[in-house]
Amino acid sequence: MANLTTISDLQKMATTHIVLLVMDGLGGLPRDLDGQTELEAAATPNMDRLAREGTLGMTIPLGAGLTPGSGPAHLSLFGYDPIARPVGRGVLESIGVGLEVGPGDVAARGNFCTLDSQGRIIDRRAGRIPGDQAAPITERLAAIRLDGAQVTVRHVREHRFAIVLRGPGLDPALDDTDPQTTGVPPLPVRALQPSAAKTASLVQAWVDQAFERLRGEPMANGLTLRGFSTDPALPPFPKTFGVRAGCIAVYPMYRGVSALAGMQVVAFDGETPGDEFRAAAAVWNDYDFLFIHVKKPDSRGEDGDFEGKAQAIEDVDRALPALLDLKPDVLAVTGDHSTPSRLRSHSWHPVPLLLWAPATTRRDVQERFGETACAAGGLGNFPASDLMPLLLAHAGRLEKYGA
Amino acid sequence: MANLTTISDLQKMATTHIVLLVMDGLGGLPRDLDGQTELEAAATPNMDRLAREGTLGMTIPLGAGLTPGSGPAHLSLFGYDPIARPVGRGVLESIGVGLEVGPGDVAARGNFCTLDSQGRIIDRRAGRIPGDQAAPITERLAAIRLDGAQVTVRHVREHRFAIVLRGPGLDPALDDTDPQTTGVPPLPVRALQPSAAKTASLVQAWVDQAFERLRGEPMANGLTLRGFSTDPALPPFPKTFGVRAGCIAVYPMYRGVSALAGMQVVAFDGETPGDEFRAAAAVWNDYDFLFIHVKKPDSRGEDGDFEGKAQAIEDVDRALPALLDLKPDVLAVTGDHSTPSRLRSHSWHPVPLLLWAPATTRRDVQERFGETACAAGGLGNFPASDLMPLLLAHAGRLEKYGA
Repeated sequence: MANLTTISDLQKMATTHIVLLVMDGLGGLPRDLDGQTELEAAATPNMDRLAREGTLGMTIPLGAGLTPGSGPAHLSLFGYDPIARPVGRGVLESIGVGLEVGPGDVAARGNFCTLDSQGRIIDRRAGRIPGDQAAPITERLAAIRLDGAQVTVRHVREHRFAIVLRGPGLDPALDDTDPQTTGVPPLPVRALQPSAAKTASLVQAWVDQAFERLRGEPMANGLTLRGFSTDPALPPFPKTFGVRAGCIAVYPMYRGVSALAGMQVVAFDGETPGDEFRAAAAVWNDYDFLFIHVKKPDSRGEDGDFEGKAQAIEDVDRALPALLDLKPDVLAVTGDHSTPSRLRSHSWHPVPLLLWAPATTRRDVQERFGETACAAGGLGNFPASDLMPLLLAHAGRLEKYGA
Repeated sequence: MANLTTISDLQKMATTHIVLLVMDGLGGLPRDLDGQTELEAAATPNMDRLAREGTLGMTIPLGAGLTPGSGPAHLSLFGYDPIARPVGRGVLESIGVGLEVGPGDVAARGNFCTLDSQGRIIDRRAGRIPGDQAAPITERLAAIRLDGAQVTVRHVREHRFAIVLRGPGLDPALDDTDPQTTGVPPLPVRALQPSAAKTASLVQAWVDQAFERLRGEPMANGLTLRGFSTDPALPPFPKTFGVRAGCIAVYPMYRGVSALAGMQVVAFDGETPGDEFRAAAAVWNDYDFLFIHVKKPDSRGEDGDFEGKAQAIEDVDRALPALLDLKPDVLAVTGDHSTPSRLRSHSWHPVPLLLWAPATTRRDVQERFGETACAAGGLGNFPASDLMPLLLAHAGRLEKYGA
């Protein structure tokens, strides 16, 4: 783990461009003991060329054996220590849909659920109610007013919404109201420590009003709240690393975590890698550092869809020339964590990394971008939180330490 | 170094079996600059197959350049930081022969020595007096009674014994009484800080009585005490890692350090690797985690016996199918430290590691189990104390961190 103060003190002005291209859940496992991983099975001629010209390695998101969620995995790529500075899920979800969560605010994730006539949960996800039905119901909740806090509510997708409370003396030390099972009612809002008693009462008052307004809904006639949390006050990314930093991402979570780090979220149309690279071209001169996030490899991995994940990687490779045409000085192609389709979930396995910086990378002996090559790559295995200093150095953006 | 609290918080229930097979002193050096190490020279067809199917790496026991003793080396493999939590040699020796050392107790190692008529040490090890002669002499010391502490003494082997004091207000801050040379008498018992003054007096009183009872012995007519220490209060291994943990080891030291960590020591007959694997089979369903310790590679290494060490490794390989028949989900084959026969001693060199977990390991390009292959293996070089979280992850025993 690099010391962020040290890095910050060594900033050097430069006109170089850094791109961090993250294929979510990139790391994989072979289908069988003799085979190739998703990345290795994918045809990636462009990345393979970059692998030959650059250096490979493996990043460890959080530590040996630790499987990261999306939030911690990205914070680590952004140079932070997500275990020393945990960020709540409520905060990530809220910021992901464009809600602001400032110091002292309390954010949570909400799930609509289906209750029976006795108020017991039948379906914890309200039948995964479609967004076009859930959004207007969420609007109804947004109209609730509380004495003592200003409340903002926004739909996320399907049965999910985010809620943020702002007001004096709030404390996020509240337990989830989701009982994690069916056949019982949602739990009351409970303070985990005395300092959160007032916040618990406020949130319970909001929940009581919400249940009134949901009465009669066929599916979404109840709700639960989870992941109460507040702004983690991260050292701002642009100031820490001395770069104008932009985020190009389709999914709210990744825009949210970027905003939390202080990056600017770039608005653009479309959702393919090609659309994202076009967005990068459009703002190229406004930023020194661009984080570009591609979600699909992770989604296909979680579906257990080996071929689909490999194709999602191929989609990125095919679009890559448009990004290379922008002539980044430093390009890192990597993932935030592994999502082997064999496991249908995130995993702890180290993550393939391709570092390409024509002016400053050493080459290694590797010829292709893949797990086996990266494990034997010139950069070795190292903590993901060390990547940012490495990228800055390759971009000529760090001074010498000491004389 | 993984944070044990984080690991403990992420425990996930599973029915998987983990085996940590430790060949003591496994790491070696080639006989000459062009040659193979003991492990590489050994014929190990079974381990080589596992190497092809699994992933190799190197563990660093304590840190770059640090040569570990047996105790620290094993504590590191068990996930602890032996530098942050030092364990005294007296404690390890005592627990190794089945003595209990609880919080507040004071343990030490004892050596019989030979004194001349002036009370000066002639032989610091009493001619390595055979155990069948030393044991009854030790019994004589066990009969000594003290006011203020209960004392237990037990023979270890040859000239060595262990002693444990239990009573109110004891403090292990005592200096060794072994002058580490001959021609001078054993040192008096000396407190290293004022709080240990009472304990120094008690131990001196015991030593005085012991010298009385040893008078007239031809070889063992004196003794020295070393390594005064108390229970280090390690976080219990089974609770920390969420596994029912058993130790299969022949030598007292390794049973002792396992017990200190809170593992159960499995009783069994025999002492060959085959005997140990049979013991594993007998208790297979009682444990989720088995630590199996094989001493001989280290002993042969310390003898400077290259061939003998290679043969000791071959003995393990030949017996290995019986262990594999138990179908462990995760098998780590490694050492606690290196003991190159060329150096005739423990060394600081990283230790070969073979990680085999059919459901979850990535392969690397390595085809054989050996130092050269492990140094280029897919897991890279990493701290031995990170091995436990890695094994738990491969066994499906760790939850995701964060969302």
